Amino acid sequence: MSPAILDNPLREGLEQTRASDPCVMVIFGASGDLTSRKLVPALYELAEANLLPANFAVVGVSRTKLSDEEFRTRVTPDGVESHTNWHNLVKGFSYLAGGYDQPETYQELKTRLEELDESLGTGGNRLFYLAVPPEAFSVISDQLGAAGLSEPGKPNAWVRLIVEKPFGHDLDSARKLNRELQRVFEEGQIYRIDHYLGKETVQNILTLRFANGIFEPLWNRRYIDNVQITAAESLGVGERAGYYNQSGALRDMLQNHLMQILALVAMECPISNDADDIRDEKGKVCRALRHYTPLEVDDNAVRGQYGPGFIEGQKVPGFFEEPKIPADSRTETYAAARIFVDNWRWHDVPFFLRTGKRLARKMTEVALTFKKVPHRIFDNGSGELEPNVLLLRIDPDEGISLRFGTKMPGLTTQIRWVNMDFQYGTSFARPSPLAYERLIHDCLVGDPTLFTRADSIEACWAAFDPILARWSDPASGAVPSYEAGSSGPREAETWMEDQGRYWRKL
Amino acid sequence: MSPAILDNPLREGLEQTRASDPCVMVIFGASGDLTSRKLVPALYELAEANLLPANFAVVGVSRTKLSDEEFRTRVTPDGVESHTNWHNLVKGFSYLAGGYDQPETYQELKTRLEELDESLGTGGNRLFYLAVPPEAFSVISDQLGAAGLSEPGKPNAWVRLIVEKPFGHDLDSARKLNRELQRVFEEGQIYRIDHYLGKETVQNILTLRFANGIFEPLWNRRYIDNVQITAAESLGVGERAGYYNQSGALRDMLQNHLMQILALVAMECPISNDADDIRDEKGKVCRALRHYTPLEVDDNAVRGQYGPGFIEGQKVPGFFEEPKIPADSRTETYAAARIFVDNWRWHDVPFFLRTGKRLARKMTEVALTFKKVPHRIFDNGSGELEPNVLLLRIDPDEGISLRFGTKMPGLTTQIRWVNMDFQYGTSFARPSPLAYERLIHDCLVGDPTLFTRADSIEACWAAFDPILARWSDPASGAVPSYEAGSSGPREAETWMEDQGRYWRKL
Repeated sequence: MSPAILDNPLREGLEQTRASDPCVMVIFGASGDLTSRKLVPALYELAEANLLPANFAVVGVSRTKLSDEEFRTRVTPDGVESHTNWHNLVKGFSYLAGGYDQPETYQELKTRLEELDESLGTGGNRLFYLAVPPEAFSVISDQLGAAGLSEPGKPNAWVRLIVEKPFGHDLDSARKLNRELQRVFEEGQIYRIDHYLGKETVQNILTLRFANGIFEPLWNRRYIDNVQITAAESLGVGERAGYYNQSGALRDMLQNHLMQILALVAMECPISNDADDIRDEKGKVCRALRHYTPLEVDDNAVRGQYGPGFIEGQKVPGFFEEPKIPADSRTETYAAARIFVDNWRWHDVPFFLRTGKRLARKMTEVALTFKKVPHRIFDNGSGELEPNVLLLRIDPDEGISLRFGTKMPGLTTQIRWVNMDFQYGTSFARPSPLAYERLIHDCLVGDPTLFTRADSIEACWAAFDPILARWSDPASGAVPSYEAGSSGPREAETWMEDQGRYWRKL
Repeated sequence: MSPAILDNPLREGLEQTRASDPCVMVIFGASGDLTSRKLVPALYELAEANLLPANFAVVGVSRTKLSDEEFRTRVTPDGVESHTNWHNLVKGFSYLAGGYDQPETYQELKTRLEELDESLGTGGNRLFYLAVPPEAFSVISDQLGAAGLSEPGKPNAWVRLIVEKPFGHDLDSARKLNRELQRVFEEGQIYRIDHYLGKETVQNILTLRFANGIFEPLWNRRYIDNVQITAAESLGVGERAGYYNQSGALRDMLQNHLMQILALVAMECPISNDADDIRDEKGKVCRALRHYTPLEVDDNAVRGQYGPGFIEGQKVPGFFEEPKIPADSRTETYAAARIFVDNWRWHDVPFFLRTGKRLARKMTEVALTFKKVPHRIFDNGSGELEPNVLLLRIDPDEGISLRFGTKMPGLTTQIRWVNMDFQYGTSFARPSPLAYERLIHDCLVGDPTLFTRADSIEACWAAFDPILARWSDPASGAVPSYEAGSSGPREAETWMEDQGRYWRKL
């Protein structure tokens, strides 16, 4: 263990992780943004925590021509140049320039990998990371297969493939991509990334639910009125405008990230915490999602596009003033949907998913609002008693709080609603690991729990396809607009109010 | 409202209390400790909060000869001499010296009260407060009756009687006292005080349970393993040694204060929060208490006497080194009992009550320990998962916390137990009112909710009589001893361990 870990008593016993075998990680898209911003920093954190195998190498692949040295410089995180652990890590980094559709690229890669197996003893274990645009996923997969790289070349060796998002843009494309990958790789080799599942509080949903006896009895339609899952952003589409205009808020956030959170909140207790037991239960939730007819979509989903406005005192442009956004774009930058999980536990309990750009603040949370008391013996003047809320804060200030009514100190029974609170930050000295650190580590040790399986992905697309289809139909009307820095379109507020409910304040 | 209240926005709307009618409060035992330490300071706080009637007078009665001025000086709380509110309050204080068994005392009192009705317009409303030793309770009650003071002398006027503790020393004496008081006063006029019921967190038990929807579904034998109600003191018997040796920990604390808390924790939801609806439900709990045979007592209760030891670094004497404690005293200074409430909700759930003098620290709390998870999917290395605990802290640091398992930040699913916490002190600007302030106020406005009714008192005595009887029998063996500053006798620890449970740490 690194000295930093040994110094901190709270970390004792923490890192009893499964060891990873020696291996080579091949990053496709190595000259891209994701590699230098997320993947390499995550590898460095793993090295710092002594969680990489002793024999470990990275081969970066991309079309851009770079020397090994240029690649290393390009991906060096700020401020680590002189650190021993970085030095030890980066000396295993090499680079290979080549087209993703060129068989020669893969022949060269194969030779490189065999050399590394020889010099480092990496034993034929490979992790292929597809940090490339989705069009390239199956191109690379096919070429890996053709070059004989998709199967372990040695006994007991493993080959795994991490696929970045987005995984398809509708049900048909997701199915097609699954079929294309699965004709080369077995499902057990494919690790579809959803970086939301790497977040601590998201992982903690299962711990909270199933390592405690007190939540599960309340965790059903009898006691829960509704669940709100919000991922609000204050940023605009910015440099991703071109991509974003093809995607939209529903595809970019709701259908994948927020649905994965929903699945963890709604699933039954699995038989064990083995990856496939958990993913079986998540899959059941996805298959139980209610599918809407086009007209039902109008009653169950709301969208919007941000106009100009102010965020933290700064004037910001509207969606249509962003570069590369055509004047007739119907792409939503805000999406909210009421989702029903049609099973015994959740019958008629609405799950409200909500996401948007240029909202009042950046915030991700899951809020379970409980039903009101069945019989009211306290008259609180105003008459109504607030419901209890269990809040899982994912970002910022990761933590958990429970809102409940308590007696105000004083000579009458006046009730005020207060929060019992737990914050990760104040309770654990160890900072939460980066999502990518967790996910790469899990793939290295062969734990697919936090990766999405083909069945769930397709089941989710099947539920969201009707919304996408309806929204792309001009018959669904004009896309509402909302002021940047607000909490979304007015239509979303009235839609909730019409249900006798309210969005949680951003 | 006083400026102090108007200054604090959190207090707004707080003091919508029922107004008290003009009245005279007669304190028997006016030269005693309780009057100057508790009652008059409570009256002053009520005056500060503008919660006393505009026309309000106090008549102090006691054997000691004092002038009005001497009485006023004697009861003046520290540091208030120059305060306007104190000045306004104390000018209504007068004194009357006389024997409690002398009819002349009551004739003089009657004259005084009629004069005050005349001069102040107090309309015949009287509150008699018996801050006297229990032997004097029925003497005074009888004399009040004989003098015609127990019944309102005018239409719409009221007469109420507050009776201090202890209320009897066993079932027979409590029944006798009830009969004696009830032959003069109606039950609705009698306010039996239990100052524990005046504490904020105790009152908050009902708010917590019934103003929230999330606790009640868990609040039963299906989810709760055991309830521990602890009132630990670090002080010894001190100057109360003579009284204490006649009483003991069980009579002094367990049978009354801790049982009242138990009743609030265990009761069903009342029809309304009217006093008698609540007291009906409390009464049902008391009647459902399991009664032990003498031999069952040995399995269900543990006692002890403190020996010398150290508390906060100070050497302190043992019980037998205290003045007035005979060398053969069998009086317990520590008492713990396992109580069962034999009804549908609580069948076989043990309620552990525990109190003692010269324990490690002063602390009062109610801890509900929940059952373990039914199916364990997380392997936490050690194997066992801790149970959830809902803790109601009564003293010190009034508040509520919930202990639950959460994922440690890091790359494995290591679980740690942490507390979600709410503290009255940090959440409300207004300090909790003194218990006596609350109770006197409630009696002034005619709200008996927090006072104990005859039926509950007798039912509790009926359950505790067998323990008292067994302990007074030398056949029950020697009284164990424990070191001052410890958490009680070793016998209490092994008794819990034999049940597969543990006392909460003091």
